[in-house]
This record gives sequence, structure tokens and C-alpha cells, in this order.
Amino acid sequence: MKGKPTSASRLTLSQIMDDHDTNLMGTVHGGVLMKLVDSLAGVVSARHSEGASVTASVDEMVFRVPVRVGDVLHLHAQVNWAGSTSMEIGVRATADRWDRAVPPVHVASAYLVLVAVDAEGRPRPVPPVVPDTGEDRRRYAEAEIRRTHRLARRAAITASRTVA
Amino acid sequence: MKGKPTSASRLTLSQIMDDHDTNLMGTVHGGVLMKLVDSLAGVVSARHSEGASVTASVDEMVFRVPVRVGDVLHLHAQVNWAGSTSMEIGVRATADRWDRAVPPVHVASAYLVLVAVDAEGRPRPVPPVVPDTGEDRRRYAEAEIRRTHRLARRAAITASRTVA
Amino acid sequence: MKGKPTSASRLTLSQIMDDHDTNLMGTVHGGVLMKLVDSLAGVVSARHSEGASVTASVDEMVFRVPVRVGDVLHLHAQVNWAGSTSMEIGVRATADRWDRAVPPVHVASAYLVLVAVDAEGRPRPVPPVVPDTGEDRRRYAEAEIRRTHRLARRAAITASRTVA
Amino acid sequence: MKGKPTSASRLTLSQIMDDHDTNLMGTVHGGVLMKLVDSLAGVVSARHSEGASVTASVDEMVFRVPVRVGDVLHLHAQVNWAGSTSMEIGVRATADRWDRAVPPVHVASAYLVLVAVDAEGRPRPVPPVVPDTGEDRRRYAEAEIRRTHRLARRAAITASRTVA
Amino acid sequence: MKGKPTSASRLTLSQIMDDHDTNLMGTVHGGVLMKLVDSLAGVVSARHSEGASVTASVDEMVFRVPVRVGDVLHLHAQVNWAGSTSMEIGVRATADRWDRAVPPVHVASAYLVLVAVDAEGRPRPVPPVVPDTGEDRRRYAEAEIRRTHRLARRAAITASRTVA
Amino acid sequence: MKGKPTSASRLTLSQIMDDHDTNLMGTVHGGVLMKLVDSLAGVVSARHSEGASVTASVDEMVFRVPVRVGDVLHLHAQVNWAGSTSMEIGVRATADRWDRAVPPVHVASAYLVLVAVDAEGRPRPVPPVVPDTGEDRRRYAEAEIRRTHRLARRAAITASRTVA
Repeated sequence: MKGKPTSASRLTLSQIMDDHDTNLMGTVHGGVLMKLVDSLAGVVSARHSEGASVTASVDEMVFRVPVRVGDVLHLHAQVNWAGSTSMEIGVRATADRWDRAVPPVHVASAYLVLVAVDAEGRPRPVPPVVPDTGEDRRRYAEAEIRRTHRLARRAAITASRTVA
Repeated sequence: MKGKPTSASRLTLSQIMDDHDTNLMGTVHGGVLMKLVDSLAGVVSARHSEGASVTASVDEMVFRVPVRVGDVLHLHAQVNWAGSTSMEIGVRATADRWDRAVPPVHVASAYLVLVAVDAEGRPRPVPPVVPDTGEDRRRYAEAEIRRTHRLARRAAITASRTVA
Repeated sequence: MKGKPTSASRLTLSQIMDDHDTNLMGTVHGGVLMKLVDSLAGVVSARHSEGASVTASVDEMVFRVPVRVGDVLHLHAQVNWAGSTSMEIGVRATADRWDRAVPPVHVASAYLVLVAVDAEGRPRPVPPVVPDTGEDRRRYAEAEIRRTHRLARRAAITASRTVA
Repeated sequence: MKGKPTSASRLTLSQIMDDHDTNLMGTVHGGVLMKLVDSLAGVVSARHSEGASVTASVDEMVFRVPVRVGDVLHLHAQVNWAGSTSMEIGVRATADRWDRAVPPVHVASAYLVLVAVDAEGRPRPVPPVVPDTGEDRRRYAEAEIRRTHRLARRAAITASRTVA
Repeated sequence: MKGKPTSASRLTLSQIMDDHDTNLMGTVHGGVLMKLVDSLAGVVSARHSEGASVTASVDEMVFRVPVRVGDVLHLHAQVNWAGSTSMEIGVRATADRWDRAVPPVHVASAYLVLVAVDAEGRPRPVPPVVPDTGEDRRRYAEAEIRRTHRLARRAAITASRTVA
Repeated sequence: MKGKPTSASRLTLSQIMDDHDTNLMGTVHGGVLMKLVDSLAGVVSARHSEGASVTASVDEMVFRVPVRVGDVLHLHAQVNWAGSTSMEIGVRATADRWDRAVPPVHVASAYLVLVAVDAEGRPRPVPPVVPDTGEDRRRYAEAEIRRTHRLARRAAITASRTVA
């Protein structure tokens, strides 16, 4: 299967946060971000794999600073890494504060693993990722580190259960 | 600070999945689950810490099988572990299929880290967790494994950037 | 048709009330409760009758105390009574206040009549209800009282119109 | 307190039913109607009582025929009856089918009891209702029949519990 | 094709504005009005043309005064003018303030052009409009003025581009 | 008051169209686009005028081709023109089709007039617009053509009423 460059599926969403997206503290609900991130990862993986995919896991999602009502939220996403049937999608969220008195704020980061599926929901092959830039190569390498640790963590937890 | 048992803050949400919660494949949007999980973790951590908290990270969220429209979704949550100001909340999601021809299906699991905050948003101390049962002790131990791996993964990624 | 125990279709929903569910007084909109109650009654009657049903009437719904934003609302529902094609579903709503300084509050009760329907929307037979406990027998008896009064009330209103 | 005519607070809402208001059978969710009915009763009682009110009970709500997506739903509401601090609001729902090949269809009726409240939520006096027409007098008389039966039913249920 | 009177398709929607319809200033979001106006124009043009139609343009929409939470918004719409396949729908929006201390306020006006389409989305003929009253004739004449100016404006803009 | 370049307030929103945004024909509701356009114009005018503003009118909004579920919708907006207290905001909407087999499609254009307001809702001065490019100058000139025709149209309609 022919590789595809990162740039072929990269996508940025931008949305105004309104006051119907808030939690009980008055800032934007983390779940609202999660839902946007999941939708976006679905589109990016569909572009890379040229078909449907499902979210297998959120590998990590870090909330750095609260998003406020009135902010313009930007979600930058790309395929960081691809295996035989799965892909890691990385999403970086930044916010323009209402008055833009500060530069865009890095508010959250997320890494999701999606699996390409056929019409019956069975895994199907995906093209390799061809990183375009040094930044892309860094993201590819870090995706492999996350993958290694994810597998190690699961093995450690399984082992702890066997012992017990 | 006096410890509190796991049972003091444990909570189960149960909700009917309707057809306004769907993704483009007709099953329930992963983001809908994420949003419910995040709200629930917020309530459980508020009960344990007796005040407000914010989501610092989703450490892992695994989607095992799709949730369908008409399913009754149950989300079981508890404080697995507590540090000085942070807590790991574990959420296990099961679904009753419409016709209940099968036992409840384990559809997803999630582990989130929340930080208790005061009125100015600064971290504040939380009570230790006192596991009630063997099952609680297993969850406590696994939360420590996840924490160790989370710190190791972050260190590995930082190291890889320094080298580059 | 073989009878089914009350326990076979009993269901509890539990949901966090957020600030997008409010009326102009800042408490949870009665209509939000009504909508949840109606959905829940639909699922319980589907379980009992093993197929679709439609709401024929809300026989009575009493709002005892306001539900607040941040409360965890529990809706307990069961088939109280069944006729040849209709069922009375009873729903009891309780709320855990945010700080749980008080025991769960009984906030509302509702009694709905649903009719089991086939694919063309025509009434179809439903199994008799077999009460499991003394509590179930009390609910069965009270459903019959409500039914008697509902029929008497309708007759009285029809009679008053004939006279006029 | 000076009486007010029925016409002073009468109100009709009219809304297009869209396909985000549906139940699992594809027709309009009964809960959507309930929510609209409750909001409307709130406005009508506020007009009659010149202040806030809360819904005490839905005395009866009957669903006659399903409402379809694309229908224009009309909800006609008025104060049928007023006591010292409570009011019965009657709502009649009709639907214009998309092609209007038939006259408007009477789809549902509802009778709600609301209590006027002051800023602390305590009951406050409401003006008597002065029926404008023969139709208004009929509604007033029927509200009294419903009230009589509601009180009788509650007494019967209380008595049945005492015996048991 | 036989003409149809204005009255055959005229329609008024009436809706309570709740606090989930607000912009960041606390009044009702202009976009909420736009969405209601567009839905209503779709129904009115469907009634006049006896089939589906699509919005081609909003020719003008003027917001005169803000709509407030708690207002009852009335949208009065009719076919002002019809060409061979297109129709101008006029919408006049008025608001009853909560306490109705003032007469209904004229809050907005809108004029939309819709095109009747067949199942393939191709334009199809529509009946001529037969104005019922002097008021209808005024609206018809003004629709022609708007149409003349719309075409002139577009020609002027095209000409300015050609010159540049 | 010192002029500000067009680039200082230009903003692009990008959003995935999901199947909860549809009209009865299954494509994206025109009103959904209108609402997004109105929110975006509000942010752009706030950036240019450094404070709140209200939408006075939609001068023209043209829907060229339907937007489909699954499209990524991009809304490009800028201040085309500024008077003493009002601004024309232009919005160009393009859609990436799901499979991106075609270049982005130009789906709609809109021109809105917003008025900058102070805390009491009174008009307040706005900075002049300094066009950055030839394209900006073209937009500025076309905004003046639209303004001229808007005033002429209103005068013509007023005149026609006086005669009648």
C-alpha cells in the first residue's frame, strides 16, 4: 500500500465557544472539547484511510488551562503514526481569548487511536504515513513511544492481576 | 486529613441512548460517552474532596464495542486513588441492549485524573482513599501502575525531544 | 399469555442535572423531568410487552420539590398494572443534593398509561403483571384505584356536557 | 382581589416539528409535547397571576394521535379555573399536517395545576377567573369536576394504605 | 397555472424565548431568529407551491430591537410575490414582553427568496400569487421594488468587477 | 480615530456538519448557516471595534449549493467597510466534501451590517477600515455599492407607500 504524506489529511477546526458549552464553574465543559476532538479525529482518519474508522481509545488527553466562553477554539489535527489497520491522531487545541491581549493559548492536547473498518466493522488496511517535515518525524517518534508505553502498561496491569 | 472509603463517593449514572446522540455510522458518538464520563468524574471527585475539581487529563479511555441507539447505558464510577491534591477516577461503562437477549455488555472503560481546586482555581488537599474491598485494593494498585507509566512516558517523550 | 414479574422490567435511570435544563427561575424545568419520565416509561413498557408501545396518557404527575442544577436525579420505574393491551407505569423521582447533607429527596411521582402496539400501530396483547412483593401488590391495587377514578372522571365530564 | 377574564391570559403557541424531536418510532416524542405544554402553562399562569408560578401537577395529559415531523403544532392554553393560590391551565394541541389534506387534527389535551409563588417560593394569592363565554364556563365546571376527582382519588389511595 | 390567494399559505409561528437562545449580551441570538425565519419560509413556500423548495437568498433581514428571554415571539409570514419558479416570502416578527406593559413590539422583518424544486432539485413552476387585500397588493408591489433593486445591485457589482 | 487593517480582525471558522443540523430534505439547514454566520460576524466586528456590537441587518445572503452532512464547512469573514458607528462584515462559506473529490465548493455568501454599541446599547464610534490588498479594496468598493442600493431601495419603498 502506497504511503501518504501527513499533509494530505491534516485539518484544523475553529469554533466560537458559547455559553451553552459550560460546566458548573462557568468555563467550557471538558466533555465539549472531547466530543469535538473525537469528531475531528474521525474525519482526519477517514481522509488518511479513505473510508470509515472507529475510535479504539483515547491514549491521553491533557487539559492545560480552561477554555472560556467567547474564546475562538482552534483544533489542529493530523495522523501522527499508522500501523497496519490503526492510526494515531494527534490534536492540539489553542484558544484565542476574546480580547486577544495574549497570543493564542495552548489549552489541551489529545492522542487518539482509531481503527479503519469496512462495512461489516472489521479492521481494514491503512496506508503508511510519510512524515513531511522534521516536526512530523518528531510526532511519529513520540507516537511510537506512547504506543510502547501503552502496551507495557497493559502488560503490567495484566501481570498484577495474575499475581493477585 | 482523615481518609474516606471508596463507597462514600461511588456513583452510577444510567441513561437511555437516543437517536440524537449518533455519529455518521448510526451508533452512539464516542464524544457523547466522553462528555458523560467527564461530568460523572466531576461529581465523584467533588463528593470525595468536598469541593470543586477540574479534569487534568484523561489517562486512558478504551472503547470496546459500539453503543447502540435504544441501549440503556450504565456508567459506574469511583475514586480509585488519591494523591495530595489529585484523584484518579475510574469509569466502567456497560450497556443493556434493547431486547436484553445478552447480559449487559462492557462497552468502555476510562481513567481520568482530576485536581481539587479552591475558589481561585489553586490545588487544594484531598482526603486519602480507604479501599473498602479487595476489588477496591486492586483498582488502587492499578491506578499506581498507570501513574508510574504516565510519568515514565512523559519523561521518555521529554528525553526524546532533548536529544533531538 | 404467561404473566411476568414486576422485577423483569424494572429500571432506574440516574442523570446529572446541568444548567442547560433550567426554567426561568433557575431550577430544573418540569418539562425536562416529563421528557425523561416519558422515555423511561417507553423502555419499561417495551421490556414488559416485548415490543413497541405508545404513551396514551399521563394519569398524574406530581412535582413535590424543585430539582436543582448539580443534583443527581434518580428515576425509578416499573409496571404497576397491566390490562389486555395497556400498562400503567409508575415513576418515582428522587434527587441527591450536591453536598448530600440530606438523604435523597423525593421530588416527583408520575403514573403513565401506555398501549402496546404492533407495526401498524394497532393495540396488541400484553402479559399480565405478577407482583413480586407486598410493595408491588400495593402499587397494583393503587393503579386500579387510579383507573377507576380516571374512568369515573371521564364519565362525569361527558355527563356534564350532555346536560349542558 | 379583582377577577380577571380568561381572555386576558389566553395564549397560543405554534411551532414546526422538526426531525430532532422524534422518538424511536419516528413520530414526535411525547416528552417534547410535555415540555412545550409545561412552558406554555408557566407563561399563561404568570400572566393571570402577575408573577412567578410553579407546576404542582399534571392532572391529566391525553395523547390522541401521533404528531408527525413537518406538522405545524398549535398549543392553545388558558386559565380554566383559579383557587386561592392555584390555577388549572388547560392546553389543547392541534396539528396541521404537512399537506393540509385534512382539517387540523386534535392531537393531545392537558390539564396542569400551577401555584403562584413569591420570591421565597411561598404560595401567594391569585385573582379569581371570570369566564368570558359559555365555552369558558364549561371549562370552569369541568376543572371543578377534575379537582373533585383528584381529591377523591388521593383520599381513596390514602385510605387503602391505612387499611393495609 | 391557477393563481392562489395569499391567505391560502399564510402562517404565524409563536414561541417562548428561553435562556438557551441567548447571545453573549444576554438577549436572544439573532441567529436563532434567522433559523426560525428560514424554517417558516420553507413551510409557507411549500404550502403555496405544493411541494419542496430551497432558500435561494435572504434579500434583507432587519433587526429593529433586541428580543428578550421570556418574550413570546410571533413570526407572521406570507408569500408576497411569485415568479415562474421563485417566491418572495415576507416575515414580520413581533414580541410580547413578559409583563405586556407595552403593546407587541415589532422586532424584525425579513424577506427571503425561495425556489420550488422537484425531486432532483431542479426548479419547477409555482402558481401566481393573487393578493387578497390592499395590504397584500402593497406587499406585492414592494417585493417587485426589492427585486428590481436586487438585480440592479448585482449588475452594478458585476460591472465594477469588469472595470477593475 | 486611527484606522485598522482588514487583517487585524479577519477570522475563519471551520466546523464538521453533522446529521443534527439537517432540514427535512436531508441537507444542512440554511438556518444553521445563518446562525454560524451571525456569531462569526459578531466576533469579527468585536475585534475591529474593540467592544460589543449588534446585528442591524443581513443585507444579502445567497445560498449557492446545498451543504451536506459530513462536509467540513469553512466560513471566512472580514470587515469590508466601516462607517462612523457601523460595519459591513462579509462572509464567504466553502465546503470540503467528504471525499474531497472536488476542490472546496463555494456554498454561500453573506453581507451583514453591525453597529458597535456601548454598555447602554447606544451606538459608539468605530475605527476606519484600512484595506490591506487589492482584494480588500474591491470588497470595500462593493460594500459601498451595496450600501447605496440599500438606501435607494428603502427610499423607493417609502416613496411607494406615501403615494399609496
